[in-house]
Amino acid sequence: MSSRADGGASADVGLLSPATAGTTVESLTGDHAVVAAMVRAEAALVRALVEVGLAPASAAAAADAIDALTLDARTLAVEAVEGGNPVIPLVRRLRAAVADDDASWVHHGTTSQDVLDTALMLVAANAARQVETDLTRLAHSLASLCDRTRAVPMVARTLTQQALPTTLGMRVAGWLAGVHDAVRAVRTCTTLPVSLGGAVGTASAYGAAGPDVLTAFAGFLEQTAPVVSWHTRRTPVLQLASAMVLAGEGCGKIAADVLVMSQTEVGEAREDHGGPSSAMAHKANPAQAVLVAAAARQLPAAGSVLAASAAAEQERPAGAWHAEWQPLRAVLRLAGGAAERTADLVAGLQLDHDALRRNLDRLLQAVGEDEAWVGLHTDHVGTWIDRVLAQHEEVFA
Amino acid sequence: MSSRADGGASADVGLLSPATAGTTVESLTGDHAVVAAMVRAEAALVRALVEVGLAPASAAAAADAIDALTLDARTLAVEAVEGGNPVIPLVRRLRAAVADDDASWVHHGTTSQDVLDTALMLVAANAARQVETDLTRLAHSLASLCDRTRAVPMVARTLTQQALPTTLGMRVAGWLAGVHDAVRAVRTCTTLPVSLGGAVGTASAYGAAGPDVLTAFAGFLEQTAPVVSWHTRRTPVLQLASAMVLAGEGCGKIAADVLVMSQTEVGEAREDHGGPSSAMAHKANPAQAVLVAAAARQLPAAGSVLAASAAAEQERPAGAWHAEWQPLRAVLRLAGGAAERTADLVAGLQLDHDALRRNLDRLLQAVGEDEAWVGLHTDHVGTWIDRVLAQHEEVFA
Amino acid sequence: MSSRADGGASADVGLLSPATAGTTVESLTGDHAVVAAMVRAEAALVRALVEVGLAPASAAAAADAIDALTLDARTLAVEAVEGGNPVIPLVRRLRAAVADDDASWVHHGTTSQDVLDTALMLVAANAARQVETDLTRLAHSLASLCDRTRAVPMVARTLTQQALPTTLGMRVAGWLAGVHDAVRAVRTCTTLPVSLGGAVGTASAYGAAGPDVLTAFAGFLEQTAPVVSWHTRRTPVLQLASAMVLAGEGCGKIAADVLVMSQTEVGEAREDHGGPSSAMAHKANPAQAVLVAAAARQLPAAGSVLAASAAAEQERPAGAWHAEWQPLRAVLRLAGGAAERTADLVAGLQLDHDALRRNLDRLLQAVGEDEAWVGLHTDHVGTWIDRVLAQHEEVFA
Amino acid sequence: MSSRADGGASADVGLLSPATAGTTVESLTGDHAVVAAMVRAEAALVRALVEVGLAPASAAAAADAIDALTLDARTLAVEAVEGGNPVIPLVRRLRAAVADDDASWVHHGTTSQDVLDTALMLVAANAARQVETDLTRLAHSLASLCDRTRAVPMVARTLTQQALPTTLGMRVAGWLAGVHDAVRAVRTCTTLPVSLGGAVGTASAYGAAGPDVLTAFAGFLEQTAPVVSWHTRRTPVLQLASAMVLAGEGCGKIAADVLVMSQTEVGEAREDHGGPSSAMAHKANPAQAVLVAAAARQLPAAGSVLAASAAAEQERPAGAWHAEWQPLRAVLRLAGGAAERTADLVAGLQLDHDALRRNLDRLLQAVGEDEAWVGLHTDHVGTWIDRVLAQHEEVFA
Repeated sequence: MSSRADGGASADVGLLSPATAGTTVESLTGDHAVVAAMVRAEAALVRALVEVGLAPASAAAAADAIDALTLDARTLAVEAVEGGNPVIPLVRRLRAAVADDDASWVHHGTTSQDVLDTALMLVAANAARQVETDLTRLAHSLASLCDRTRAVPMVARTLTQQALPTTLGMRVAGWLAGVHDAVRAVRTCTTLPVSLGGAVGTASAYGAAGPDVLTAFAGFLEQTAPVVSWHTRRTPVLQLASAMVLAGEGCGKIAADVLVMSQTEVGEAREDHGGPSSAMAHKANPAQAVLVAAAARQLPAAGSVLAASAAAEQERPAGAWHAEWQPLRAVLRLAGGAAERTADLVAGLQLDHDALRRNLDRLLQAVGEDEAWVGLHTDHVGTWIDRVLAQHEEVFA
Repeated sequence: MSSRADGGASADVGLLSPATAGTTVESLTGDHAVVAAMVRAEAALVRALVEVGLAPASAAAAADAIDALTLDARTLAVEAVEGGNPVIPLVRRLRAAVADDDASWVHHGTTSQDVLDTALMLVAANAARQVETDLTRLAHSLASLCDRTRAVPMVARTLTQQALPTTLGMRVAGWLAGVHDAVRAVRTCTTLPVSLGGAVGTASAYGAAGPDVLTAFAGFLEQTAPVVSWHTRRTPVLQLASAMVLAGEGCGKIAADVLVMSQTEVGEAREDHGGPSSAMAHKANPAQAVLVAAAARQLPAAGSVLAASAAAEQERPAGAWHAEWQPLRAVLRLAGGAAERTADLVAGLQLDHDALRRNLDRLLQAVGEDEAWVGLHTDHVGTWIDRVLAQHEEVFA
Repeated sequence: MSSRADGGASADVGLLSPATAGTTVESLTGDHAVVAAMVRAEAALVRALVEVGLAPASAAAAADAIDALTLDARTLAVEAVEGGNPVIPLVRRLRAAVADDDASWVHHGTTSQDVLDTALMLVAANAARQVETDLTRLAHSLASLCDRTRAVPMVARTLTQQALPTTLGMRVAGWLAGVHDAVRAVRTCTTLPVSLGGAVGTASAYGAAGPDVLTAFAGFLEQTAPVVSWHTRRTPVLQLASAMVLAGEGCGKIAADVLVMSQTEVGEAREDHGGPSSAMAHKANPAQAVLVAAAARQLPAAGSVLAASAAAEQERPAGAWHAEWQPLRAVLRLAGGAAERTADLVAGLQLDHDALRRNLDRLLQAVGEDEAWVGLHTDHVGTWIDRVLAQHEEVFA
Repeated sequence: MSSRADGGASADVGLLSPATAGTTVESLTGDHAVVAAMVRAEAALVRALVEVGLAPASAAAAADAIDALTLDARTLAVEAVEGGNPVIPLVRRLRAAVADDDASWVHHGTTSQDVLDTALMLVAANAARQVETDLTRLAHSLASLCDRTRAVPMVARTLTQQALPTTLGMRVAGWLAGVHDAVRAVRTCTTLPVSLGGAVGTASAYGAAGPDVLTAFAGFLEQTAPVVSWHTRRTPVLQLASAMVLAGEGCGKIAADVLVMSQTEVGEAREDHGGPSSAMAHKANPAQAVLVAAAARQLPAAGSVLAASAAAEQERPAGAWHAEWQPLRAVLRLAGGAAERTADLVAGLQLDHDALRRNLDRLLQAVGEDEAWVGLHTDHVGTWIDRVLAQHEEVFA
């Protein structure tokens, strides 16, 4: 098992994270994507400087040269250690790649934190768009399922116990409403603020043109311009994390239900191709729900690191910012993995109507009631389902 | 040290939490406040049932009787153990306190989770209003300070090192923008959804009148009606937690800066009456900033428990809901303590202009520059400060 | 609902924590217990100073006077705010309560952190002894149950699916082994280091006698003397937290299994008196298992705050220490509540052998096997059970 | 920026984790190392089966064939998604690589969880050995520094304020004692339990030979044999996590102190080659201390996920186990990165004795004291230092 020059021996290629391995968001958030986003940010800055007239028009060539570069993420990773972040070696390379006269316009007036924060926001906005796509697919599946099964009675359970009748559509309406919440939250992250505070948040190198450079920079990157530097005002990171955690846990709720419904003794649902077992051929594990549940278990902790980093001292904190990078990617990946897997899972979910009925009959027997009692408890669930479906129309109008 | 019948021996009266002890939010979130909110919710439900015509007008007397009750929180706490929540013993007492004919209308069609979730939302909305009040006071102090000190030069520091000149007003503008973010977030929590899903989220006991009962119930409590039950769709809890964490960390950022500015060797700020030391008379500790920092360190973990609880299985989860209650109060208290203490701290903050200047001179000496260089870096910070002050007008318009 | 002068309006009397309300550890860790422990520490210090000859023999009277005091926890809590910790107002009262000549020996050479850390360790050691007691009771129940049911076949389940036969005793052996691990861990916390570093960890007020005073102090409190001050070397707190988390999660594992076994559709176990439901008379909720699960969900987050506080700067950190106090109590209470509730739960656990058999038959039918196949999978589990029971003898030898 | 067939586009090659990039533990814990460990575990099992006589001697050839294999981690990662873990595709490949007659002995009687858990323990034990090595190097540096500077007076600081004199050696003694604690903890993890519970923890495929196979398996892997399966008794994971968190936070404490000592206004220490800044040439950032601080900030959250996973239901939980893998690697990497970086940092730490003196003089001036007072506070610190150095001899005897 030979090590490779590109850091292969150390690389995390997803082996320990089947919840996210192979998903679209995984590839959108890999180290190569981060490097590409840093490069894109640096090129956009040069263009912004030209646009506002701080740099000569000829400097635009430097932006083009930067865009054309291919850089190795592992090399930057290793070289990042000395200065504590990957932007330092990146800038060295970018400046070497442009004409001598233009080199001073590369990274002009900015700082490592601007470039890395902007790059991570670009990556995050991309990821958020994909999460929105997956959640939308999920929501439409759920809306359809909810409507189709609105009158299919099943047992509602509380604290593990059979409780009262509900309908399958009503349970699914709850899932759907959670996904609506998630979609709304994630949509607030599909464009995010760029960072251009300069060395200490004042963007002083741009003089009076600071806000104009910021606006142009944000424009080239199709993101938003913050009112003032957020180097140590981490609201964008916290709100992004909150949205991703909400999205992931919304999926986690669905997975939690699918897991109980999939239990052998409950038997109400199964994944379309249950996961194989390495030891028992007769089993069909709810593997995708398990993976979503695993993602939902990791999200809150990653979010907590990001929250704690917000109490960042001075104009750049000594550790809190650096602690954000991996957890920030983690919340994107885990939410992205959860959304994609849950959308797939629901699309292929096999529901066993006989089992639903059998379990309900058990409740009827336990309480000594009959179909009329089921009706008493379910005749009006359509009112709630219709409210959720109406919300669906609004959310996706 | 005698134990008391009301659970005094076990009680937490704030001894281990000076960050929150004695604050307004502490008293708004105590167990007595939660009991009062549960009682208020039960009374409101009876009134709602009367309003929509499910219960006879005479039942309104039961609501009045409930309102008049005084219940002991410790008794309910101990009796809660058997069934796992305090609503069960509460309802027993409420029913005993009303006329026999009305007893069946007490808690009619609802469930423990509705009552406790609604009560916690009432408590949370109250707490959020107080947090907003404290943050508003803080924001106005900061806006004034920011404007007054916009041109006072000081050293900006990154990664612990003196970096470049900024102004005190610019640093404060960053604090203020963070408080703006917090205010906006907290305002989303000053009215919150009530819960009235009934036993399993279908509110089936109300038949077709479910939505009407819900609307009336929310109306009596001056909160909002959810589109569908959130028994196991915990968006309200997550969004509340996110807002409180954001608010607390925004204060934590200010505290982090005050702590560095208060260091003996930096000496740029001190609290108006520094905390005494039990061992060293010559010290004046930045005690309030320390307490805010302590609160900011506890918030993310409490938030993470709430986030994890959102992946709640079935119609009521077996543990996830019960795990929310203490952390939910914790996020309210810690954010509330942070907001009140930070507002006090900033109101009394003593800034040492000589020290600000002395530290700046040190930087000038290190880089071999003079006042002109300071101007180069600070002449245009007013642009950013004005943007933040304009935002201040918007936020508090 | 009137507020009370002792802070009743703000008090947490356990209403939101049925997992811990009314347990022995709850009362051992209440604010009154912490005050008592602080007083005990201060008295012990005076006695230690007398013993090593730094203070005159007459000062022993001051120790007795201190011991006789009754102090109100809420008053100290509120007064703690100014200086940031409750020891400052405590010392003021203690000095006022002793003869003038002795006042200077009260708190002599020590600091707030010593007194509060020592008090919390006294409280923790007490709590740990109780947790050990509860875990021991639990372990003996489990050992007996394990032996009795060693040959009772049941279905083992993985990833929610019926997998292969095991025996009930084998499953219980796994629980028992986890409790053994917990007992061993908790035993390391039944005596804990005192703290006597003085103002800055050097205990310089005692001159060359520092180690002797420390030894005497630890002796009077029946705890251990650390090699050097742990003011900012938080190993004792981290190891305590790790032990409590391990104990709580060991109980959480049992609760997790009981919850699944209690599901209506599984039906293999139920608590001896299931928790009542406020809405559904036919239900018998596994309320104690739910509460243990709720405790297990809160422990890791509390532990994470304590771990993060260990990176404590300088001779006393500005926030990290203060952030420890509530989470430290929380880990004790949650582990204590989990241990006591789980011991009760297991003692009264009703196992339904018919259901165990019925579920097993379902598996046999699914795989087309018979009793011989069950034997194939269970004939040798006794080997493992015996290993665990042998370990039981060792642990409780 | 082209994607690569081996998953390069998605790979994490350390770009966002300079705290760990390029460290030895990073390479010991990469996905390739995990694959290698899984392969090693599978080969060891075949050899164990041969040794106890369950498999024919000829099967040993299969073990050799397995050992010779090279497998691609990314391929396994992607194929892991279907079944939820990477062992399933691994076994398929291993069986294809051995002689037909031997194929049935590959993975015989075991399950995915055994193989992955054992592999992770192999990886962890390797990592722990490296952490021990780095901590040992660190400890020896500190012991030497502590002894050399035992009488160098400096200011001790509490709550950010200059407090009383101590010596540099005394502060370092505190660091050293923390590293001793860490070394002792990490040493408990240099051999770890293997897992061989089989499908459901009973290892029933081995019949009465179960314990013998387990012992042989552990022997080939040079790890220990557990008393009973720990599939859902996660003590080994929790104790490993606790040790790694303790180690990382012990380093974090040193970094926290170095960061304050490195502040421009304090100036008592600097890293031997300060980190460059991308924006300010005159700065020399304490980059390594920053990275260690960043690691210390991430460890508690990763540990909390592992702790929460311990409440694992039934014979294999539906999500809790899967949620462990990434956080388990994270605690190893973060502790490993912290240990290696801190050892490097301390080895090259430049202490500025003039600054130490200047800051002390400031305290003397503030309290109106002189050298005699310094002596009063530092003459006896040697007693404590000697205790720590004596402990050093014991720890490394």
